[in-house]
Amino acid sequence: MTKKNNPDELEPTKVEIMEATYHALGKHGYDSLTIQDIADEFNHSRTLLYYHYDGRDELLVDFLGYVLYEFLENLPDEKKSARAELETLVETLLPATLDEQVYRVQLAMFELRVNGPHDRDAREQYLRVDNELRDLLEDIFTRGLEAGEFAEIDPAVEAELFLSLLTGTRTRRLTVYDPDESIHMLRDAITTQIEWIAAN
Amino acid sequence: MTKKNNPDELEPTKVEIMEATYHALGKHGYDSLTIQDIADEFNHSRTLLYYHYDGRDELLVDFLGYVLYEFLENLPDEKKSARAELETLVETLLPATLDEQVYRVQLAMFELRVNGPHDRDAREQYLRVDNELRDLLEDIFTRGLEAGEFAEIDPAVEAELFLSLLTGTRTRRLTVYDPDESIHMLRDAITTQIEWIAAN
Repeated sequence: MTKKNNPDELEPTKVEIMEATYHALGKHGYDSLTIQDIADEFNHSRTLLYYHYDGRDELLVDFLGYVLYEFLENLPDEKKSARAELETLVETLLPATLDEQVYRVQLAMFELRVNGPHDRDAREQYLRVDNELRDLLEDIFTRGLEAGEFAEIDPAVEAELFLSLLTGTRTRRLTVYDPDESIHMLRDAITTQIEWIAAN
Repeated sequence: MTKKNNPDELEPTKVEIMEATYHALGKHGYDSLTIQDIADEFNHSRTLLYYHYDGRDELLVDFLGYVLYEFLENLPDEKKSARAELETLVETLLPATLDEQVYRVQLAMFELRVNGPHDRDAREQYLRVDNELRDLLEDIFTRGLEAGEFAEIDPAVEAELFLSLLTGTRTRRLTVYDPDESIHMLRDAITTQIEWIAAN
């Protein structure tokens, strides 16, 4: 069950479990990950881990919520231009290259996404990620339009477009590119699109 | 090993195996699919199946090549406008709704994609799918540009953009939408993009 994923509401133990999960995924990847691997990265007893989670999959769904929250929390505040915010969002989701650990964690989260059609909790958590990112994009496009930074776009439509574009670029990078391979061609396409909607 | 995936070069038995695989995937999905499930859909002996394939994963990689070939073969010829061709490609890859069997086959192919980082043959086959689709898109954009149908675009960059956009829309549909749920909002975003690059 996914309940609270906001670390402000999470007890410190849960935050430690999430950090242990991050390190375990970076070492072992998704397929072979066991709850014991997570326990090995956790500074407290395995019993305490099982007190919070019945199994690996339930824990990973919460981990996805934690990653989403951390991602949203760490975005720069709204003092910058909408265009700069959009560029930061792209850079955060799609750095030109990935180190091995970050690649493994991103791939693990993608494998959890693919589990969505077979696991209702995973699917609902990913639907939430989808909705949060679309709202964030729509907000950026609305502010950019009001400030005259972007040409005449429909913020809701442009948000759908960018969410599909970012999702597809991550899908392609994770499944057909090598972990350390640069995705500059894929990134250039996104940059061109941003330039296109920029009025100036 | 993936060798020849062109059905023109495939013996009739291989084509029958591919058709049996399609039906088996539509019934059982990817995870639980066994080579016996495929044999059950195949009108000849299981021995003949094993004569051609050592295992399920090898067969599925060839199946992906077969689907790609069938897809490219069945696209309309080039007499239509570039824009109409692009719209047909979007409609073929992303019909507004999917019936259950088509959904299962698309999901199975997506699960094979996610297997890419762990299976070199699957990865190379998906890289080939990526490259073929990008070439096709670049060709459509080049012709549309020359015919004055599209505004000043860089066909190579626009092809990367559309490939990520189509891949991301499929990823979102398959993982967070219900099989029979309409993706008209996601499709509207693509339509808007096509209208935007159309000069007239």
